[in-house]
Amino acid sequence: MTRLAIDADSLFGVANLPYGVYSVPGSAPRVATRYGDHVVDLALLLDDPVFEAPSLNPFMAQGHDRWVEVRSRIASAVVGDVPERAVHPVADVTLHLPFEVADYVDFYASEHHASNLGRLFRPDNPDPLMPNWKHLPVGYHGRSASVVVSGTDIVRPSGQRLPPGAAAPVFGPSTRLDIEAEVGFVVGTGNPMGTPIPAPEVDRHVFGVVLFNDWSARDIQAWEYVPLGPNLGKSFASTVSPWVVPLLALDAARVATPAQEPAVLPYLAMTQPWGLDIALEVEWNGEVVSRPPYAAMYWSPAQMLAHLTVNGAPTRTGDLFASGTVSGPARDQRGAFIELTWGGAEPVMVAGRSSTFLEDGDEVVIRAVAPGVDGARIGFGEARGRVVPAR
Amino acid sequence: MTRLAIDADSLFGVANLPYGVYSVPGSAPRVATRYGDHVVDLALLLDDPVFEAPSLNPFMAQGHDRWVEVRSRIASAVVGDVPERAVHPVADVTLHLPFEVADYVDFYASEHHASNLGRLFRPDNPDPLMPNWKHLPVGYHGRSASVVVSGTDIVRPSGQRLPPGAAAPVFGPSTRLDIEAEVGFVVGTGNPMGTPIPAPEVDRHVFGVVLFNDWSARDIQAWEYVPLGPNLGKSFASTVSPWVVPLLALDAARVATPAQEPAVLPYLAMTQPWGLDIALEVEWNGEVVSRPPYAAMYWSPAQMLAHLTVNGAPTRTGDLFASGTVSGPARDQRGAFIELTWGGAEPVMVAGRSSTFLEDGDEVVIRAVAPGVDGARIGFGEARGRVVPAR
Repeated sequence: MTRLAIDADSLFGVANLPYGVYSVPGSAPRVATRYGDHVVDLALLLDDPVFEAPSLNPFMAQGHDRWVEVRSRIASAVVGDVPERAVHPVADVTLHLPFEVADYVDFYASEHHASNLGRLFRPDNPDPLMPNWKHLPVGYHGRSASVVVSGTDIVRPSGQRLPPGAAAPVFGPSTRLDIEAEVGFVVGTGNPMGTPIPAPEVDRHVFGVVLFNDWSARDIQAWEYVPLGPNLGKSFASTVSPWVVPLLALDAARVATPAQEPAVLPYLAMTQPWGLDIALEVEWNGEVVSRPPYAAMYWSPAQMLAHLTVNGAPTRTGDLFASGTVSGPARDQRGAFIELTWGGAEPVMVAGRSSTFLEDGDEVVIRAVAPGVDGARIGFGEARGRVVPAR
Repeated sequence: MTRLAIDADSLFGVANLPYGVYSVPGSAPRVATRYGDHVVDLALLLDDPVFEAPSLNPFMAQGHDRWVEVRSRIASAVVGDVPERAVHPVADVTLHLPFEVADYVDFYASEHHASNLGRLFRPDNPDPLMPNWKHLPVGYHGRSASVVVSGTDIVRPSGQRLPPGAAAPVFGPSTRLDIEAEVGFVVGTGNPMGTPIPAPEVDRHVFGVVLFNDWSARDIQAWEYVPLGPNLGKSFASTVSPWVVPLLALDAARVATPAQEPAVLPYLAMTQPWGLDIALEVEWNGEVVSRPPYAAMYWSPAQMLAHLTVNGAPTRTGDLFASGTVSGPARDQRGAFIELTWGGAEPVMVAGRSSTFLEDGDEVVIRAVAPGVDGARIGFGEARGRVVPAR
């Protein structure tokens, strides 16, 4: 047995205790928590075979009461005597996609982002927001199979685009490859078909929170997206952070969402604040270029989940719904490069290069912190990806 | 052992031999074929445990060569001595969702349907088709968890809609509930991320074909769908037929697609005809109201799959991609009631009732036949659903 030492200001203290899936050479992926810079095998720590699975899904499916109980047991166990074979330095493990993605939906919940994209894509419209935007959290389904874990290379996608002024599209590698810095919510237990999830019950269903990069080929997207929405411009890859931060860890991060005017319909009403004070940062080739504040998001995860299911649609263990790009009101709070560089018209200097969209070899890392209990700070790890040339 | 008798003109003769998942009281779901009106357990018929699974996925994952081999073995076995305990009358079994749906994408591949909806939704546009429509098969991702097997009741969805002339949306049960008669394609083996599937290789990847009803709440859809496409207006339920007809059974049904002008980009070029002469019929409360011809579809399944993956997006065993509404040029060939009744403005008489959209208690059945080898006719079973009141 051993005692685990961690830094006093670690982003992975007892206030956090996120869940992930790790492996070491010669062993199969299993569930772990992260405590400081230690990866702690939960099947060994808690003597519970549900954590021998290669994903969080079996544990998440056990439901909210188990999540509470297990979190408490982990918090006690990591500060006591820990079996040595349960512990690995974080630098020595491979981290895997932490959950099997069932259905994946991406929302569009930032008023700043939606307004910026409205101005860019529909410059002739007097109101940059569509008429429905303040009445419902607009979202669309994306490709679950394309969700990859942080560190996976992003192959530049090829596809159709319509060059400016051209009469017909051309085919080739995307020339406007972008990011979207987002926060994702992982459903632990879903709802049966026909039984919506009320907004106040979000915390019974959402297990945890990840960082999310919805890589976007803007040229492909702009040509394809009418009238049925984005498809190939998004479906090539989406990156999630390897640690799922329990929603239970984020009580101290809960804040009110911005005032919602006009008033929402009753099924979207919240009885408690479900905004989240998560401070993101976007690093591009080693330089932080943006600090999007999640607290500025118009629609809350409670509202997103209530909306997703209000028509009776079922959700399942492993469903992922993401916020859409997190953008704040200031330029250096924009979570997509199309906004940051205003459609490429206003390049930014990044690591000594005048930059608009992503070039081959570029690397983007999204990180975030949030307040935890007792003044702690909670880390989300990172969602990292490097662009490699089109094949 | 027993010999199985079937009608000479059965739609489920040796030319067909579809795959499904059945159960009888007291036993778990298992894979079967249908031969005439007999459901034949394949694990028992072929002495192969892969068919003891409750879905087709493990068998489909074995790949194209196995599909060919097994089809040949079934064809020999069903006309010989069959173990009695492997056989059940089709009327005595429960049929289940035949495969686990991985990602689900719905296309929009009928020029007649897209043109009709363009005229209805965007009456001021001179061209009812969007500029991209003839350059790529437009499609969007839908909700996999909402795919249900034929016979499942369809609960009328509630949601937001904007009444004509209103300034703000109201919430309530959909008042414009519709169908979309479609054909779905089931991916047996997918492609790894980054490696597109060329159009000519569609038959190495597509295992089989189902009928599909993409139930649609037109009022919810019309309000929500800008700019990210349909979501709640579709995600409450989609019905599939219980028998997956092997693509291998449809060689005799293959026909040329309509001429494609302008010429498609090279990645969408086909080296063989991949249109399919599948004759659908839509029955509404016992009366056939439409006979949509699948042969009139502009985009082929080979083109849909090539497009889906050309950006490197991966597909998996159990992926489902559907054609979108099948509509022909004539009014009584339209596969959605919004087209058949021209947005509700031109009601049709159905079983003695002037009808526009679906009322509670209404039942819709989609059926289809296609030519098989040696002059046989191949049946697809049915995709049936009854509307029950909103909860």
